[in-house]
Amino acid sequence: MKRSVLKFGGSSVADFPKIKDISLYLKERIEKGEQLIVVVSAMGKTTDNLLASVHDLTDNPNDKDLAMLLTTGEQQTISFLSLVLNDIGVRAKPLTGYQAGIETIGKHLKSKISSIKGDLLENLFEEHDLLIVAGFQGFNKEGELTTLGRGGSDTTAVAIASAMQCPCEIYTDVTGVYSTDPRIFPEAKRWDQISFEEMMEMSALGAGVLETRSVELANNHNIPIYLGKTLSDEKGTWIVPNDQILERKAVTGVALDKEMAHITITYPSHDRQFLSDLFKLLEDAEINVDMISQIQNQDGQQFSFTFKESDEKELIRLFNALKETYPDLYFKIETTYCKVSVIGAGMRDMTGVASKIFKTLLDADITFYQVTTSEISVSYVVDEANGEKATRLLCQTFNL
Amino acid sequence: MKRSVLKFGGSSVADFPKIKDISLYLKERIEKGEQLIVVVSAMGKTTDNLLASVHDLTDNPNDKDLAMLLTTGEQQTISFLSLVLNDIGVRAKPLTGYQAGIETIGKHLKSKISSIKGDLLENLFEEHDLLIVAGFQGFNKEGELTTLGRGGSDTTAVAIASAMQCPCEIYTDVTGVYSTDPRIFPEAKRWDQISFEEMMEMSALGAGVLETRSVELANNHNIPIYLGKTLSDEKGTWIVPNDQILERKAVTGVALDKEMAHITITYPSHDRQFLSDLFKLLEDAEINVDMISQIQNQDGQQFSFTFKESDEKELIRLFNALKETYPDLYFKIETTYCKVSVIGAGMRDMTGVASKIFKTLLDADITFYQVTTSEISVSYVVDEANGEKATRLLCQTFNL
Repeated sequence: MKRSVLKFGGSSVADFPKIKDISLYLKERIEKGEQLIVVVSAMGKTTDNLLASVHDLTDNPNDKDLAMLLTTGEQQTISFLSLVLNDIGVRAKPLTGYQAGIETIGKHLKSKISSIKGDLLENLFEEHDLLIVAGFQGFNKEGELTTLGRGGSDTTAVAIASAMQCPCEIYTDVTGVYSTDPRIFPEAKRWDQISFEEMMEMSALGAGVLETRSVELANNHNIPIYLGKTLSDEKGTWIVPNDQILERKAVTGVALDKEMAHITITYPSHDRQFLSDLFKLLEDAEINVDMISQIQNQDGQQFSFTFKESDEKELIRLFNALKETYPDLYFKIETTYCKVSVIGAGMRDMTGVASKIFKTLLDADITFYQVTTSEISVSYVVDEANGEKATRLLCQTFNL
Repeated sequence: MKRSVLKFGGSSVADFPKIKDISLYLKERIEKGEQLIVVVSAMGKTTDNLLASVHDLTDNPNDKDLAMLLTTGEQQTISFLSLVLNDIGVRAKPLTGYQAGIETIGKHLKSKISSIKGDLLENLFEEHDLLIVAGFQGFNKEGELTTLGRGGSDTTAVAIASAMQCPCEIYTDVTGVYSTDPRIFPEAKRWDQISFEEMMEMSALGAGVLETRSVELANNHNIPIYLGKTLSDEKGTWIVPNDQILERKAVTGVALDKEMAHITITYPSHDRQFLSDLFKLLEDAEINVDMISQIQNQDGQQFSFTFKESDEKELIRLFNALKETYPDLYFKIETTYCKVSVIGAGMRDMTGVASKIFKTLLDADITFYQVTTSEISVSYVVDEANGEKATRLLCQTFNL
């Protein structure tokens, strides 16, 4: 029997009419003989509203209690969806993260899935045609409720698909993967297929369609992912193993990440312990760093990296703590930069890509502050004001 | 170390200012050296609102999904309360019904607590001063979320107090137990103490302060219960074992139950199987019957009982099903009656109570349709229009 995991995000289940429409669609697929696992997020802005309400209660919310509060959002969605599905004759069963056996590790609000009880879900298909799993949530070894980090519901869906060895369809407001954000470059092309490798770069570089962790997970378990628009006939994009991509272009996409910030750190060069202490703290705080570079000059060691803008507050707290051990430490955070990345699995085999990028940026008088390269991408830090312009120009250069 | 269970109902935690006030009160008690378990309901009208919203989604909601939906209400309250308590320095831990190990049996929306993991709670006091438990909810053998029947949060509190062998304080909008509803008879007296036995009759007869099941449970485990007004200095009522009551009055209270309905059933007298079938169905549907009486006349067996008005729809469904087996069955439901009960543990030892009641009702021209007596109470079914009048007159008769 064909089996699939389907994931619907918060805006796809934002109100009751949408939940009813999705239910009818799911019923059609069940009647065609499929078994489905449906992962849903909290309805619309529920999570944001719950978080906002907490500000009226305390200025110092603790993560454990917040996680417990937030999990009620998805629990309501799965209850509502199951009420409709059972009413229209689908044998559906709603499961919280805990009930689905989604065990997590890490901080309460930024947890990672460590294991899923696939056999538990498998057994439930004996008496049900459709399982509804609350996305974005799980429980830790202490039995406490946890929520996953950014893009958490996608990760839930891909992790379940990996455990069940079946494809995963992720439905959002956007129809699949484009060469770049269509809001910035309306002529952007939509791909029918893209490789895991390219998708991972696109995600990591801030294309925003799907979080890196989800793509990584699917790649590791060889689970094909479909990205499509909710209840739309428009064709979306399949993310497939690299060897299944037949025609390969040098450059497949340009990603623009505005949510990044940049930090420059200066510290006395004799403090060899410093970097080790810093990275331990970053790891404990689960702050991802990106585009690292380091130089030594007359002022000491100078070190810079980019990070997610949302981590700024935590990073400042962390550096102020570090200053107690390293009083000579100096740091400066810049949030008016953005990152433009050119991605293509064919890039490593083809020459001339880097020189074309340099020429495009120089011709347009766009200053860049840092460059990093990977096997299949090149990233540039530029002023936020130049980000969209650079993206459009690079799309034109590579005919995307 | 002194330990107590405290329960706050929905109106006591209806908004954030109330949650903050309760938190400060709890902190004071912790600082005096107590360990507390706090049981809370969903905030204000949350449960009603969730139920109402479901009507926009389906006309046939199933109990399992409804239970899963409703449990989010209390889960939000425990999260909010814990956020504030931890912020003001109380080592508090919120627990859902599942996490507190509250196992239940029976229907998903009318479950009964079958066991509580007292040692689990005991162990949590090693690192916490205060545990917050979501009332009204638990989980069944299948690991599904369930909600308790009416007055569920009270039962949660008393069951935990029983498991932990400590007193239980139940806070509501009303200050303790009165001889009758002060809204009907403003001169009603508030008791400092009342026996379990009397309280059980008061509850069973519809006094509405505390559900019978909770009082029964406390009586079985010899757990004293305090009924008081939330955050008020006014003295409430302690419910204590019978032998601790020193001064005993013949009559302690008059209860008025408007939420009752009355059914009269006629069936051919040769159908001996009928009553057995009927009671099996009532048991399966978990409908409580009360004030049963039976006579035989020329039309066959006539049988009547009273029941909770909220069970009317279910009862009609059940009788229509019965008619398929018993086509000669005839039934008539009357919802314009009410029940007035006179209660007193001293009643059995003292004469004259019944005659005083009869005289009071007859003098006032109040017709009664059915009478039942127990060891410590007498109940009369009268027209709803006469209910409050009868209550007031009986209070005057017995100087309550």
